[in-house]
Amino acid sequence: MNRYTAPVRDMKFALYDVIGADKLYAKLGIEHAQRDLLDAVMEEAARFNETVLAPLNAVGDEHGCGFDKATGAVTTPPGYKEAYAQFVEGGWSALTAPEHLGGQDLPESFGAALKEMIDAACLSWGNYPLLSHGATEALKHHGEAWQQEVFLKPIISGQWTGTMCLTEPHCGSDLGLLKTKAEPQADGSYAVTGTKIFITGGEHDFTDNIVHLVLARLPDAPAGTKGISLFIVPKLRTARDGTVGERNAVRCGSIEHKMGIHGSATCVMNFDGAQGYLIGQPNKGLNAMFTMMNTARLAVGLQGLALIDRSYQNALAYSRDRLQGRSLSGAKNRDKPADPLIVHPDIRRMLLTCKSLAEGGRMLALHAATLVDVLERSKDEAERKDADTLLGFLTPIVKGMLTEWGNECAYHALQCFGGHGYVREWGMEQLARDARITTIYEGTTGIQALDLLGRKTMQLQGAGLQMFLKMIQEFCTEHAQDASLTEFVLPLAEVAKQWGELTMEVGKKAMANADEVGAASVDYLFYSGYVALAFWWAKAVAVAEAGDHPAGFKSAKRETARFYFARILPRTQAHAAVMRSGAGNLLGLDAALFDS
Amino acid sequence: MNRYTAPVRDMKFALYDVIGADKLYAKLGIEHAQRDLLDAVMEEAARFNETVLAPLNAVGDEHGCGFDKATGAVTTPPGYKEAYAQFVEGGWSALTAPEHLGGQDLPESFGAALKEMIDAACLSWGNYPLLSHGATEALKHHGEAWQQEVFLKPIISGQWTGTMCLTEPHCGSDLGLLKTKAEPQADGSYAVTGTKIFITGGEHDFTDNIVHLVLARLPDAPAGTKGISLFIVPKLRTARDGTVGERNAVRCGSIEHKMGIHGSATCVMNFDGAQGYLIGQPNKGLNAMFTMMNTARLAVGLQGLALIDRSYQNALAYSRDRLQGRSLSGAKNRDKPADPLIVHPDIRRMLLTCKSLAEGGRMLALHAATLVDVLERSKDEAERKDADTLLGFLTPIVKGMLTEWGNECAYHALQCFGGHGYVREWGMEQLARDARITTIYEGTTGIQALDLLGRKTMQLQGAGLQMFLKMIQEFCTEHAQDASLTEFVLPLAEVAKQWGELTMEVGKKAMANADEVGAASVDYLFYSGYVALAFWWAKAVAVAEAGDHPAGFKSAKRETARFYFARILPRTQAHAAVMRSGAGNLLGLDAALFDS
Repeated sequence: MNRYTAPVRDMKFALYDVIGADKLYAKLGIEHAQRDLLDAVMEEAARFNETVLAPLNAVGDEHGCGFDKATGAVTTPPGYKEAYAQFVEGGWSALTAPEHLGGQDLPESFGAALKEMIDAACLSWGNYPLLSHGATEALKHHGEAWQQEVFLKPIISGQWTGTMCLTEPHCGSDLGLLKTKAEPQADGSYAVTGTKIFITGGEHDFTDNIVHLVLARLPDAPAGTKGISLFIVPKLRTARDGTVGERNAVRCGSIEHKMGIHGSATCVMNFDGAQGYLIGQPNKGLNAMFTMMNTARLAVGLQGLALIDRSYQNALAYSRDRLQGRSLSGAKNRDKPADPLIVHPDIRRMLLTCKSLAEGGRMLALHAATLVDVLERSKDEAERKDADTLLGFLTPIVKGMLTEWGNECAYHALQCFGGHGYVREWGMEQLARDARITTIYEGTTGIQALDLLGRKTMQLQGAGLQMFLKMIQEFCTEHAQDASLTEFVLPLAEVAKQWGELTMEVGKKAMANADEVGAASVDYLFYSGYVALAFWWAKAVAVAEAGDHPAGFKSAKRETARFYFARILPRTQAHAAVMRSGAGNLLGLDAALFDS
Repeated sequence: MNRYTAPVRDMKFALYDVIGADKLYAKLGIEHAQRDLLDAVMEEAARFNETVLAPLNAVGDEHGCGFDKATGAVTTPPGYKEAYAQFVEGGWSALTAPEHLGGQDLPESFGAALKEMIDAACLSWGNYPLLSHGATEALKHHGEAWQQEVFLKPIISGQWTGTMCLTEPHCGSDLGLLKTKAEPQADGSYAVTGTKIFITGGEHDFTDNIVHLVLARLPDAPAGTKGISLFIVPKLRTARDGTVGERNAVRCGSIEHKMGIHGSATCVMNFDGAQGYLIGQPNKGLNAMFTMMNTARLAVGLQGLALIDRSYQNALAYSRDRLQGRSLSGAKNRDKPADPLIVHPDIRRMLLTCKSLAEGGRMLALHAATLVDVLERSKDEAERKDADTLLGFLTPIVKGMLTEWGNECAYHALQCFGGHGYVREWGMEQLARDARITTIYEGTTGIQALDLLGRKTMQLQGAGLQMFLKMIQEFCTEHAQDASLTEFVLPLAEVAKQWGELTMEVGKKAMANADEVGAASVDYLFYSGYVALAFWWAKAVAVAEAGDHPAGFKSAKRETARFYFARILPRTQAHAAVMRSGAGNLLGLDAALFDS
């Protein structure tokens, strides 16, 4: 019952009209990334996701993954494996990988749009290639040449998949606590021993080999995060010449029973002296891990976006079809016994919340993804450095806010269905259950917020923020005389100014008490997300008006922007007040008195 | 893994110290409602809920209800039936019913506290007595003497249960659309025919007979809500003299597969010329239905409250136990490898959100429940009328806000657990899934908001609001000179003033365009809820300080109130700004352009 149509038109609008990605591709010299090719690929991706993956979403939820305790084997839901074969056959796994590694070398930002489609079509299924993509990035940047040849190429071709093995039973956000050990062996490899939990795609039936990237400690490693190294541990023992042998000493011990994403196998992985190879330098594993993790964080942000859009599409269709009640301002549907839900202002409030966050979030996420392209391809070092700074600043916003909005919108969309939303057959409750993991994995919202405020803002003296504020300022200056945009430009300039002031205020307080960072961080993240979207919405209206679009499209952009500025942006004022209230009201209560 | 301890101390504080329910009981002449008896009953209720019901919560979720298509029989999860037998044996079903009908005649407000325990212990199980309670109220107020004798007494004793049959496939919020028919029979009974959906407890194995209260239309009934009558339709044919016969022509056709509350049977009920008896006057069924529904709405509000408290208790225990990361302001747990989660300000933010909404919500809900006692027992007509007005105003706030906060807090509490919150074994994801229905059934949040702003405020010229504002004003005046309360009294007076102003503003706009009501209503509901809780928190601090409580208890109340005023109350300002933005930004976009 739950449908999905890839929002191709809005993706093109965001990517090319608003962000100007096509011009960027030309500037970066990605010669084959021409609009006619990209458009054809996007249409084909839409077809694949709508017809192959989307029908698997309910199936995967219903069946979940099977686990055979005797062999440690995991069976994915019916159709998943076949869809993966089609995915590989279609070349989708190699879409954005470099040509010399067998990839098609298309831009990451273009790949991000296609990734949104995958996640909207079938989030659980999308987790398998997502993890491969993270492993690809880590091996591409930190792997030795033979490691790229032996392990990376088969991941890119889709012959094998990759995983990230970070979490252990006693350590999640706090990686300094991890205990998994890696003992050097005579042949230069390592014997990896330990237990990892919450390993997405740790075991499955898509491919015969799986390349685990595992954080572990060398015997002489310093304590904490400075003593962590990264290892390749293949499911099948794999020699340096690429010869694949017997099963390695790594095995899935069980899979989790979860609230949602039932088709995504979440594995306990037991390493028992498994053959592994060091990636990069000893004790520098977190560097490589961050490469993976930043890729994965943007990817999880896209999951949030995807869920907003699929939630919205279904709530919209239902709200147009379902007749219930009469408009308070007079019947709109006189020949029928009732009006459609969409006449009710409160239904429109929920729908427009989803619409404004989906389309706004798409611009936010795709813009961040273009910075990956600049970072990876620009020949100008200063430009690369700037892209890195701004990307670092935007990544926690993309991950943190799109996933929070994903949950909020799944909630609104379910609400539009009333009691039917709570019943499985409509598929809305699955979207809500699936969405719930996205604010947790790859770093909780709290972790994103600390990364944004502590690391990416205060430690860097606000460099990323300044760059984003400059974008806003330039836009406001450019359109200062445009009366048709005043309703957006003025409030945008105001919150941008306040964003800078709040950052200064929190920074000052934090110098006196480091807990002020943690006390302000989540509200700072939300505040930042809302201002960022205000910029993209203002820009979207300006671009739509100036472009060659149907009148209805222009009207939809303007009215949605109006809604956003009137009904979403004011949330910033609650977040500002809360941030300004300081840490005292969080720290005053003794931990022993919380149940008094 | 998921625990529950009844919050007896805070219930007593809210009910007696803050609200003064014991004095009210004396004033109303409920002679047997003495503190020593009530305290003993409350302790016994805590024991029953903690030991009998709480362990069934996970069981019910895992097993769900069984349905036998051949017979239409529903099997509740293991232990449910036995717990119901103990519930009846203990006299709990008759707790607040009148003595002449076999009840123990304890106050409804006292019963509300105990109901919170049931819902926190096992929400799904609690739905069966909840529906009986609704049917009890309808029959008590609108049933003829023989109907009370034959149908009501066995419901009160727990021998039978009751249901509310309102919704049909094509009509939920809009009851005017309902089609079920009732044909008069020669013997004065009616033959009821139609299909009802979403019928909680429509079929089960607790009791042999089930008393359905069914909305249906008489043959000559006017269209819309003015042509709806209410009927008793027993599962077993039951004569006027109480003789129970064969199966009536009513049968469960299927049960829903839902996101949560798996132990609560949600039935499609097919009536096929079933024997029924008219309750009250023809075509006046909605009056009796509103009696049931108001009772049920307060009860669902208590479900929200219960879920906040259980979520909070578990998140608190986990946050104290789980070691992860170091306090940013320096290690708090030097002898351990990490600090407990509760040192982190953002974890405290989530915990204190739950704590402040649980304890604040408890005062709000129990105060509303005392108005039921006044309404039912006061001998002063003016007092009864005032209680009715204020109760009518508060009911949508209790229902709407406590259930929204229930969802919010289940979300925060799950988040405190990180990835473990998403895994079934910890029980946190069940709380989140169970909570999701509460903002939908017995009227969605949107319906509550329209009831509050349209019916209970604007149609009554703000009578209920004025009464609540007067309570706030009196409190502020009383404590105007109390320096220790200034931090609460001043902002409370400010938002109370704004509450009145906003009401006037919206009212004026609505006279020009009725859609302004729908456009403002949900934000008005949230605004109202936050101001109401600010009042109760300010009062709680005043009462705690003045009373004979341990210093830790006083400190906990004050610090939690500080948190509430600093970090929750500012949300009002976003809601105020949104309300003031008017209906234009919701209505501007043509329905056909929502997917442009």
